[in-house]
Amino acid sequence: MADVAGRDGLKWAQVAAGVIPAWVADMDFPPPEAVREAVLRRVDTDLGYPGWLDDSTVGPLAEAFAERMESRYDFRPDPGLVRSFTNLNQILQIVLHLMTEPGDSVLVHTPTYNAFLDTLRAMDRRPVPLELIADGETWHFERPADAGGAKVLLLVNPHNPTGHCFTRADLQDLAELAERHDMIVIADEVHADLAFAPDAHISFGTLLPHRTITITSASKAFNMGGVHCAVAHLGHPGVRAALQAQPPHLYGAASVLAVEATVAAWRHGDAWLAEVMAILDRNRKLIAKRIPPHVRYQIPAATYLGWLDFGIPNAAEHLESRAGVRLNPGPIFGAPDGFARLNFGTSGPILEEMLTKISAAVPSP
Amino acid sequence: MADVAGRDGLKWAQVAAGVIPAWVADMDFPPPEAVREAVLRRVDTDLGYPGWLDDSTVGPLAEAFAERMESRYDFRPDPGLVRSFTNLNQILQIVLHLMTEPGDSVLVHTPTYNAFLDTLRAMDRRPVPLELIADGETWHFERPADAGGAKVLLLVNPHNPTGHCFTRADLQDLAELAERHDMIVIADEVHADLAFAPDAHISFGTLLPHRTITITSASKAFNMGGVHCAVAHLGHPGVRAALQAQPPHLYGAASVLAVEATVAAWRHGDAWLAEVMAILDRNRKLIAKRIPPHVRYQIPAATYLGWLDFGIPNAAEHLESRAGVRLNPGPIFGAPDGFARLNFGTSGPILEEMLTKISAAVPSP
Repeated sequence: MADVAGRDGLKWAQVAAGVIPAWVADMDFPPPEAVREAVLRRVDTDLGYPGWLDDSTVGPLAEAFAERMESRYDFRPDPGLVRSFTNLNQILQIVLHLMTEPGDSVLVHTPTYNAFLDTLRAMDRRPVPLELIADGETWHFERPADAGGAKVLLLVNPHNPTGHCFTRADLQDLAELAERHDMIVIADEVHADLAFAPDAHISFGTLLPHRTITITSASKAFNMGGVHCAVAHLGHPGVRAALQAQPPHLYGAASVLAVEATVAAWRHGDAWLAEVMAILDRNRKLIAKRIPPHVRYQIPAATYLGWLDFGIPNAAEHLESRAGVRLNPGPIFGAPDGFARLNFGTSGPILEEMLTKISAAVPSP
Repeated sequence: MADVAGRDGLKWAQVAAGVIPAWVADMDFPPPEAVREAVLRRVDTDLGYPGWLDDSTVGPLAEAFAERMESRYDFRPDPGLVRSFTNLNQILQIVLHLMTEPGDSVLVHTPTYNAFLDTLRAMDRRPVPLELIADGETWHFERPADAGGAKVLLLVNPHNPTGHCFTRADLQDLAELAERHDMIVIADEVHADLAFAPDAHISFGTLLPHRTITITSASKAFNMGGVHCAVAHLGHPGVRAALQAQPPHLYGAASVLAVEATVAAWRHGDAWLAEVMAILDRNRKLIAKRIPPHVRYQIPAATYLGWLDFGIPNAAEHLESRAGVRLNPGPIFGAPDGFARLNFGTSGPILEEMLTKISAAVPSP
């Protein structure tokens, strides 16, 4: 299933010959056949202004999103409150831009998805960290005692880079805090479809709908990061009003091709997804079996991302030069340099090869 | 070439059965085969983050744009000053949003492309009109005497809805005015490739590069209005600085599919375009032959849009109900209701049928 020979994206194109890429969060699998068919059908019928052009909720996209959230996560978005954008980081920047000021604080779990951390830095918003705590063999996130003055909770659930699925108790703590401190919650649920049973994704919109901007995309679960179609459910009325007051086309519009690809993935991609999940499930367990025992690794409950504490300086750099495998270095996520993120969204044999090389290159303690 | 049976876009989907649509500015031709191939190739290799992801100028897109502008219009954009967006109206709104205030004035030729007129209204920017003047059989635009306090010149060249190609003398007048009044020029050149020889498109960037934001897309000439990929050449340093000061992903990003489609159209679509231009050239002349003599029509120098003065009240409404042809009504462009815009981007036989029906429905004077 992972024929990587033809892949020319960032993940494979920017590593030296012989280096196996386990960095950029794309998988090595072609997207569902239904996506291919939907794009091709669109090209072969009409690339003109679509019939839903005047519908700011992008009709079929909002409906497909709402149906999926309800059937899988028991969250019932109002399709009338769904807006489309091109990507999740755009939506995060829009909400921060409209609802906060430079210097304002944002509550966020640390380590933090690197692109979001970059956004906070670029926009001069101060991260208030909820730290990952080592707990014997495994780890968990600290419970929020206080909002630290934050106006926004940026909740990435399932979490990137750790693959943690927040429990109902975790989320209730966060919801109480958000309510107490009048916070806006930006709930990035892009990895929701990648939760492994019996772990389950709980959508934050079910807990605190009137404070939550739920954002997602088919980009991760269906492996189409370059397609650029994302949705936001504007549960928070203040955010809704602020967006409404902006010029109507200021933030652009997803391509008709991107919308078709997304709707097809959400409506017709689940058999493909089940197949991918079976591979990822074997992969996440294989890492636990094959990684040297002194490397700290907790099997992730979701995603194709493994969070590893190698306990050596500059772990990612060391592994690229000594093992020929490129991981994402911990510091880009705000973590120490002994940590690295391993993308295991690849075939079993490629992962085996990576783990063999990594194991040989990690010094014994 | 115009098989309209399968078309499901806005243009065909929203008219009653039996009504021929000549309104929304899509053509009835499928886009170039090279576009289809490029999209398909992208779907079949890699929909992940593209190799040019970190390149804010979207490498291949900026290069294809710069090469085309230079080879066809002798304008040499600096690819480093090119930014990609999703559509032209988005870019207009961004520039107005960053560089002007509500109540500010914008110099614009009238009639005005309806979506841009809507933008000025939605953003509370005041249009300062340069009026179209009837001149015996034909018409021309008034020369600008003064900027009327406008900070921005919105130049749609070739012009929509009239299909006028501004002459060098026209453009020099405008350039002098812009220079004298320290104006930003937004030059929408999306119809440039649709100019009929011997008329020729002159790119405003050749006259006043340091004041001009040149914006374009393959959407019109290659008939892919839903694809949503547009470029802006940020010749004006103030606009460049203002954009640079915004959060980096605030305005989103075009889909990798949209970028591929656009690059393919610009690099490999010219044989297709020549074929389409031959059809459009016959069509624009056919209208002159077949329209009743008291209907005022000047054969357009560019575009697939005919601007017609029927000299009857509510012309478009009359023609939809009596002729079964939907044109865009003059008032949406800021013109009297005797005017209407006819989209002749269709096959000869369909246009013949439209003209027969229109001629029968237009009362004699």
